[in-house]
Amino acid sequence: MADQVITGTDLSRLRELNSLTVVRALRDQPPATVTELAKLTGLSRPAVDVIAQGLVTGGWATVVEPGASSVVGRPARRYRFRATAGHVIGVDVGGHKVLALLADLDGDVTHTARRSVAADAGPAERLAALDQVLAEILRESGKTAEDIWAVSVGVTGPVDASGRTTLFSPMPGWDSVDLPAHLSDRFACPIIVENDCKLAALAERWQGAASDANDIVFLLAGMRMGAGLIIDGVLRRGYGGAAGEIGALKAVRWLTAPEHLQRCPGVPATVGPDDAAAWVFNAARAGNRDARTAVTRYVKDIAIGTAALVLALDPQVVVFGGGFSRSADLVLEPLQRELAKLCLRVPDVRASTLGADSVALGALRLALNEVDRRLFTAGLSAPIAPRRE
Amino acid sequence: MADQVITGTDLSRLRELNSLTVVRALRDQPPATVTELAKLTGLSRPAVDVIAQGLVTGGWATVVEPGASSVVGRPARRYRFRATAGHVIGVDVGGHKVLALLADLDGDVTHTARRSVAADAGPAERLAALDQVLAEILRESGKTAEDIWAVSVGVTGPVDASGRTTLFSPMPGWDSVDLPAHLSDRFACPIIVENDCKLAALAERWQGAASDANDIVFLLAGMRMGAGLIIDGVLRRGYGGAAGEIGALKAVRWLTAPEHLQRCPGVPATVGPDDAAAWVFNAARAGNRDARTAVTRYVKDIAIGTAALVLALDPQVVVFGGGFSRSADLVLEPLQRELAKLCLRVPDVRASTLGADSVALGALRLALNEVDRRLFTAGLSAPIAPRRE
Repeated sequence: MADQVITGTDLSRLRELNSLTVVRALRDQPPATVTELAKLTGLSRPAVDVIAQGLVTGGWATVVEPGASSVVGRPARRYRFRATAGHVIGVDVGGHKVLALLADLDGDVTHTARRSVAADAGPAERLAALDQVLAEILRESGKTAEDIWAVSVGVTGPVDASGRTTLFSPMPGWDSVDLPAHLSDRFACPIIVENDCKLAALAERWQGAASDANDIVFLLAGMRMGAGLIIDGVLRRGYGGAAGEIGALKAVRWLTAPEHLQRCPGVPATVGPDDAAAWVFNAARAGNRDARTAVTRYVKDIAIGTAALVLALDPQVVVFGGGFSRSADLVLEPLQRELAKLCLRVPDVRASTLGADSVALGALRLALNEVDRRLFTAGLSAPIAPRRE
Repeated sequence: MADQVITGTDLSRLRELNSLTVVRALRDQPPATVTELAKLTGLSRPAVDVIAQGLVTGGWATVVEPGASSVVGRPARRYRFRATAGHVIGVDVGGHKVLALLADLDGDVTHTARRSVAADAGPAERLAALDQVLAEILRESGKTAEDIWAVSVGVTGPVDASGRTTLFSPMPGWDSVDLPAHLSDRFACPIIVENDCKLAALAERWQGAASDANDIVFLLAGMRMGAGLIIDGVLRRGYGGAAGEIGALKAVRWLTAPEHLQRCPGVPATVGPDDAAAWVFNAARAGNRDARTAVTRYVKDIAIGTAALVLALDPQVVVFGGGFSRSADLVLEPLQRELAKLCLRVPDVRASTLGADSVALGALRLALNEVDRRLFTAGLSAPIAPRRE
């Protein structure tokens, strides 16, 4: 092809793109030398050298000076992404608790705050608990709201584009709550509300049971059962935010499956409805016949809806998560057996490794995704907390 | 940020990227001037001018000289993507027919070939019909196999990574057929085999009932019922190519739904099993009470599996396609009513506008996607038919 005219605009665009390429390479790995960064990015060494120095000046990177241990020649300095340039908060507003995590831009959690809430608590009580954990986590970390780059909150029920659960929420009165509006009094940064199952799915792929997979069906199993779907590596919300709500269909039996546990003969009268399932799982583990039958029936029923998702999406991995994942030892094998009967191709069935923290961790991941999205589309200014668009 | 060193390698990478940017802009629209292309691509006018001339020399674009009708000044020449630089073939190997379409790189169909096959025909007979339509379409278009840049074939049953339907195929003996091997004797270009429902979904989004949507559940409805899923604008195959096979699950009733039509009282003995459904739809349209009941029951049953997909994926649009879409007038309204009862959020339910050609058209689209993929990743050489990797 003929020679080509390169204008000043073209060059400035190239510089910006190359700087972002280097930031991205820095984020994903341990401190790197200019030579390593040049190899990773495909850019020339001289170009990377100039960019890296610019990133240090701009506040995006720090220099790691070489130690005295090097043997030959002058050892190369390394550059590290400055993860403490900003922080994010991830919250799980669940049926029984509110849990908040604070992390730096690498996703390393530095502070945690938790408060119990009664399952039948109204919206005011739940919002008060949320406010308390947020105040506590800022206080304990010595941060102010201005230090936070994104806040993400997980709630039960499908979340629409406005961040509300208008279609349906099992938390009493919660469908009327406007969480983004509530939080915007305190935080000027982006606020993202998302469904709990979807967040837990994100977390399991980020640092849990499915970190090797791009096609994941995540099951949040408890007295309610929901699903979060990751397809080709991306969390799928659906057109109206209601993807994963297959449990609403009677024919797939998720609605009634937990009743086998709740109504199991022999559950002592002193055990409340919220704890009946745990009692049954324990009794089944100890060999109680009624309890084992209840668990078998429970698994057969959740297998129907799970098979529907597996047949629809053909995932690599099914992750069994949520409160009941504590009893994955009793569920995984029979679930895999049922799926083998019902499906054309049976995926790996694995237990969640994140347990009760998965929703809050997924909220952190979503907050970090939002920070990245802004970083890599808005271009590189000096690191400051982004404001809502 | 500090000044940056730009090396020869950086510049050559930039030139390649910019050329591809211009080709992409040319492909997606009517003939464009250098000024228009500069606007579309964000590149400078002088850069686009040089690139466009290079693309003409290379065979990727043609010049459209301005007409005499211009009033003021020297009118600008326009550049057009040279769609006839290559051709692709899309084929539907169906239960009752083999249909092939030949198109240029814009996807404009120039030739069609079709041959009937008996539903119970074995693999040898079906492959012979395939060979015949391919020979015919090359002969009639005056092309040779070397002129074809990609061949894509739709078949029934989930297609694995090797292009075979090893998991399951309703066509007798077809699960043993290695279609890529069979076709590679004739064609050196990429050969892609894909599931018929998935291809029909692609076609409906490309130029059918769902061209406005990114989240689509496509139903291929006939004596068998299958689904193709487009999520966030991309056709989803699943980890093992078996996405959309929810019909295999008894609980969602797709397996048995067509029996309501086949077993409808009053179907004349002279009407064969393949034509019973058509008879029932016609009778229902004419007011026959048994036929109307059969259609109602059929719709209630297909609604269960459809609701499972809608609840799982929360699509914008459900497209009712396949052979039964000829009777969409009887199906659409009751199907939407059933979904309203079963789902949290009800999508648009629409009839296919492509009918019996949808699978072959989707095969064309997939072949064009493959051409684009190679074009935009392998880089721009002169236009020649790509060879299999």
